[in-house]
Amino acid sequence: MQRRGLMLVLSSPSGAGKTTISRRLLDEEPELDMSVSVTTRPQRKGEVEGVDYFFVDRQRFDAMASQGELLEHATVFENSYGTPTGPVEAALAAGRDVLFDVDWQGAQQMRTRRRADIVSVFILPPSTAELERRLRTRGRDPDDVIAKRMDKAANEISHYAEYDYVVINDEVDRCLAEVRAILHAERVKTERLPGLADFVGRLTEVYQAS
Amino acid sequence: MQRRGLMLVLSSPSGAGKTTISRRLLDEEPELDMSVSVTTRPQRKGEVEGVDYFFVDRQRFDAMASQGELLEHATVFENSYGTPTGPVEAALAAGRDVLFDVDWQGAQQMRTRRRADIVSVFILPPSTAELERRLRTRGRDPDDVIAKRMDKAANEISHYAEYDYVVINDEVDRCLAEVRAILHAERVKTERLPGLADFVGRLTEVYQAS
Repeated sequence: MQRRGLMLVLSSPSGAGKTTISRRLLDEEPELDMSVSVTTRPQRKGEVEGVDYFFVDRQRFDAMASQGELLEHATVFENSYGTPTGPVEAALAAGRDVLFDVDWQGAQQMRTRRRADIVSVFILPPSTAELERRLRTRGRDPDDVIAKRMDKAANEISHYAEYDYVVINDEVDRCLAEVRAILHAERVKTERLPGLADFVGRLTEVYQAS
Repeated sequence: MQRRGLMLVLSSPSGAGKTTISRRLLDEEPELDMSVSVTTRPQRKGEVEGVDYFFVDRQRFDAMASQGELLEHATVFENSYGTPTGPVEAALAAGRDVLFDVDWQGAQQMRTRRRADIVSVFILPPSTAELERRLRTRGRDPDDVIAKRMDKAANEISHYAEYDYVVINDEVDRCLAEVRAILHAERVKTERLPGLADFVGRLTEVYQAS
């Protein structure tokens, strides 16, 4: 059955394990592509144009934003990041799904523009004890960097109820299975199967002729 | 995470293979119970009270219907069938899911009463050729019985778009996997997780203290 692709939006606060889930999801779902963002931030050593980011200058970025070519965008310190519309449209029309790793503000901007195509999932850490453990073992950043990250996490988690689904990452395999179930279920939502009316019409003729 | 159970409604026209899907679903999903209907039809040999049906007389049935104790009911020839509310409520409150094998009219009545708890899935046969094959190999019923069944099927299939999901039974394992994905996804819908607000509150405290 022909289908229209969907936009799978994953958000989570720090320590929920979203990066691992995203990577494994892309490995195990051949019809799912990762959305590649545009950014004004300078290209770092080892980063590949079109894989890690599309690197653009400020003028180009602002033009894209003002011409509606970005599904969402944000500026963090002096650098801007955004999701280009073109590749997403092409994937959806070809019946492929696209994965977005964005925060609640990105998810909110995307919902405003494309509600019907968006499936949003919020990932939570499994327990306060496990969250404390994960946050403790996270390297040696300066105190003010950690404080800022924790503020952002507390803010992020306060938006969980805006998401369609909430999964708890107590165990990676289990959490991944839940996200995959969401993807597989949403693919057979009635409104995502544009060829259905014709197909049902042909089946109806069989019943009428029997 | 504590959750409220959901009501999984399966409908399909003749020849889609719903009975096999329902049986295997119940086998493979330990948290899913089959809803047992009440009926005024006489108990047949081999049928077990409370397993196949709850057998009631006409007076009791009409009392249940008029007192709102049935989620849906219908009369086919002189026999009435209905879905009792009590066992369903108990299962949902205990975090168990309940499976309903009803036609589009039953599904419609249930949606009117309990929209938020209902997840409805319409099962379709895979192709006109395969449907013709399945209908031909279906025993030797009299022509008028077959004609009536085909009319009912054509009517049933015309209601597919009222369902949340449509799955095509091209291959039983694949179709079953899709129905299970729907069940697993719907279990983690944000609004079905009543304990989430408290849990998120406790996680927020960890971020704020870090």
